[in-house]
Amino acid sequence: MASVEFIKGLCTPALVVDLDKVKRNAEGMKERCQKLQVQLRPHMKTHKTLECADIMTGGSRRCIVVSTLAEASFYADNGYDDILYAYPLPFDKVERCAELSERLSLFHVLLDNTLALQELKKRPLKQEIWQTEGVELTGVYAHCGNTYSCQGEEQIKAVAQQTTTVTLQFMDKLKAAGIHSPKSSIGSTPSCSHPVPDMAKLSEVHPGNYVFYDVQQSLIGSCRLEDVAVRVLTRVIGHYPRRNQLLVDCGWTALSHDGGGRLPTGYAIIEGHPELKLLSMTQEHGRVEPVSGKLDFKQFPLGSLLTLMPYHACATAMMHPVYFVHSKGKIVDTWKPTRGW
Amino acid sequence: MASVEFIKGLCTPALVVDLDKVKRNAEGMKERCQKLQVQLRPHMKTHKTLECADIMTGGSRRCIVVSTLAEASFYADNGYDDILYAYPLPFDKVERCAELSERLSLFHVLLDNTLALQELKKRPLKQEIWQTEGVELTGVYAHCGNTYSCQGEEQIKAVAQQTTTVTLQFMDKLKAAGIHSPKSSIGSTPSCSHPVPDMAKLSEVHPGNYVFYDVQQSLIGSCRLEDVAVRVLTRVIGHYPRRNQLLVDCGWTALSHDGGGRLPTGYAIIEGHPELKLLSMTQEHGRVEPVSGKLDFKQFPLGSLLTLMPYHACATAMMHPVYFVHSKGKIVDTWKPTRGW
Repeated sequence: MASVEFIKGLCTPALVVDLDKVKRNAEGMKERCQKLQVQLRPHMKTHKTLECADIMTGGSRRCIVVSTLAEASFYADNGYDDILYAYPLPFDKVERCAELSERLSLFHVLLDNTLALQELKKRPLKQEIWQTEGVELTGVYAHCGNTYSCQGEEQIKAVAQQTTTVTLQFMDKLKAAGIHSPKSSIGSTPSCSHPVPDMAKLSEVHPGNYVFYDVQQSLIGSCRLEDVAVRVLTRVIGHYPRRNQLLVDCGWTALSHDGGGRLPTGYAIIEGHPELKLLSMTQEHGRVEPVSGKLDFKQFPLGSLLTLMPYHACATAMMHPVYFVHSKGKIVDTWKPTRGW
Repeated sequence: MASVEFIKGLCTPALVVDLDKVKRNAEGMKERCQKLQVQLRPHMKTHKTLECADIMTGGSRRCIVVSTLAEASFYADNGYDDILYAYPLPFDKVERCAELSERLSLFHVLLDNTLALQELKKRPLKQEIWQTEGVELTGVYAHCGNTYSCQGEEQIKAVAQQTTTVTLQFMDKLKAAGIHSPKSSIGSTPSCSHPVPDMAKLSEVHPGNYVFYDVQQSLIGSCRLEDVAVRVLTRVIGHYPRRNQLLVDCGWTALSHDGGGRLPTGYAIIEGHPELKLLSMTQEHGRVEPVSGKLDFKQFPLGSLLTLMPYHACATAMMHPVYFVHSKGKIVDTWKPTRGW
C-alpha cells in the first residue's frame, strides 16, 4: 500500500478494505451494465456487509443476490428488498423462505427440479399469487462458473458468449412455449468484468466478487492486481535463521486455506515483496520464506508489517468479524459482516 | 450417527457436537494426567466456547491456554483465571496483555527473543513483580507439533519422548544456572493421548484438540474414529446424473478447506458411506461422487441428510457461529464460540 502509516495502530491480523478501490470497482461494474442496459443485481456473498451493499446498490437497497438465508434476513432486517436467494430451494428452509416472502415485496427463490416445486406448492411463498396463478416462473438464472478456469480476456469473453447464447436460446424456447417475458440472468465476476455485446439481450447480471477482486481474479484476467481492494495485515513475530523463515501472525483463521498455496508465492502475494512466499499456515501463524536464496532478516524486524493480497477475497473476508475500511491514508469506518445460514 | 431422528429439524449445514463423547474425551485426558501427576492446562483454541471450557477444566475455570487475546478476554470476562496466552508476545498487543494481567491473578505470556523482553520491560505486566524482581521466568513451554506427521502410537510416543527429554535437559540447565523451579510444559493432542512415563517429570501439559478429535487425529493414531465428537450435517440439494454427482449444502464456509482434500474420501469422511467422496466445494455447495463406479441416486433423495466427519475439527468449528450439542438422541444445548483476535 502507498501509505502504511495509518495502519500502524491496528492490531494484526486485520482485514483492511480500500474504500476508494471498492467505490471504483462498484462504479466500473455499474457503468458496464448501464452501457449494456442490463440490470445489475449485485451478489452480497463476498463481503456480507450493509455498507458495501449500499455502495453496490448505489443506496437503492433494492435488487440484490444472496447465498444464504442468514444474508437474506440480515438485508431484509435492514430495509433491503427485491432479494434473490441464489440457491436450489432447500427443503429444510421452505418455511423461512415463505416468511421472507411475506415480509418483502420481492423475494425470489431458485428451483432446479420438480420435487422442489412440489415442496414449494405445499407452502407457496406468496399466498395471493398462489391462489390466483399458482407458482409463477419469473426468470432463468445461470452462473458461468466455468469462467474461473479462464486465463485472459479472450477466454473469458468466449465463455460469456457461450453462456449468453445458451441462455438466450432457452429464453426463446420458453417464449415459444407461451411463457410470457421471464427474466434472464447470468453472472460471475469474470464475465461481467468483460461483457460481450450479446449480454445486452439479457435482463440482469449478478456478479459479486468484483467489489473486492483478488489475486485469483487478476490471474483469470478479470482485473489488474492494482484493482484488488482488500489486504490482510500481518506482523513479523519470529525470526528462524536456521529454517530461513519468518513467522508472521496470519494463520488460516485470518486468510483461509483457499487456493491451496498454488501461487508461486504460496497462499498469497506479499505486497512489495515478490521475493517472499507464504509457504504454510497453522491456526494463528504463517511461515514466510524467500522464493529462492537467503532471507535478509534485517529487512523484516520483529513487529514490522507485511500486507497480504488474498488469493480468494470471499474466503478471506469470511474469516473476519470486522473489516477496517480506509481512505486517503486514514481508517474511516469498520464494517461488520453477517455469517451463518 | 446411531440416531439421526433428533437432527431432522436442524437447518443445514450445521455443526453438531456429541456431548457424551466430549465428556468422555475430556475425562480420558484428565485421567491420563492424574495418573502421571501432571497438571492439565487444556487449550481452548479448538472450540472457543465457555461450555466446553467448563467440561475441560472440570468447572474450576482455572488453568487454561488460549491462542488469541480475543479468547483470553472472553474467558477472563466469564470468570476464568490462570490463563496462558500461548503466542510469541506480539508487540502490537503488549498494552492489552498488560490490562489482562492487571485484571487476572495469573496471566502468562510467552517470550522467545530478547527484543520481546525489551518490549515487555517498557510495559511490565505486573507492576509489583516488576518493581521487586523484574520480569520473572515462570516456565518453559514447548509444543511438539511434529507429532502431527506421526502414524500410530509408536511414532507418537517416540516424538513425545524426544520432546520430553529435550525439555527436561533444558530445565536442568536452567537449574544449574540458578533459576529456581520454573515450570515445564509440553503439548499436542497426539503426545498427550499417548503419554510416555517421563512426561510425569514435567509440570504441565497443554493439549486442546482432544476434546473433539477429528479424522486427522484418527489417522495420526491419537484416537479411534468413534471418538470423534463433531460432525457437519448436510443435505442433498441436487442430483447430477450426467456428472455422476450429488450436490450437498456444505461448502467451505461450513467445513473449511483444511486437509486439501487429501483423504481417499476427499475433504471429509461421509459417515456410513465409505463409498462416497466429498470431491470439492464452493462457498455454499459440496460435490459428492462415488469413490468408484456409478452412483445410486435413489439412496440419496433430495433433502436427505449426510453427516461429515471433519478432517480438522479446529478449522471446521471456526466456521460456525453456533454448535448444536446433542446427547442421547436430543439437542440439549447450543454453544457459541468467540472469534477474532
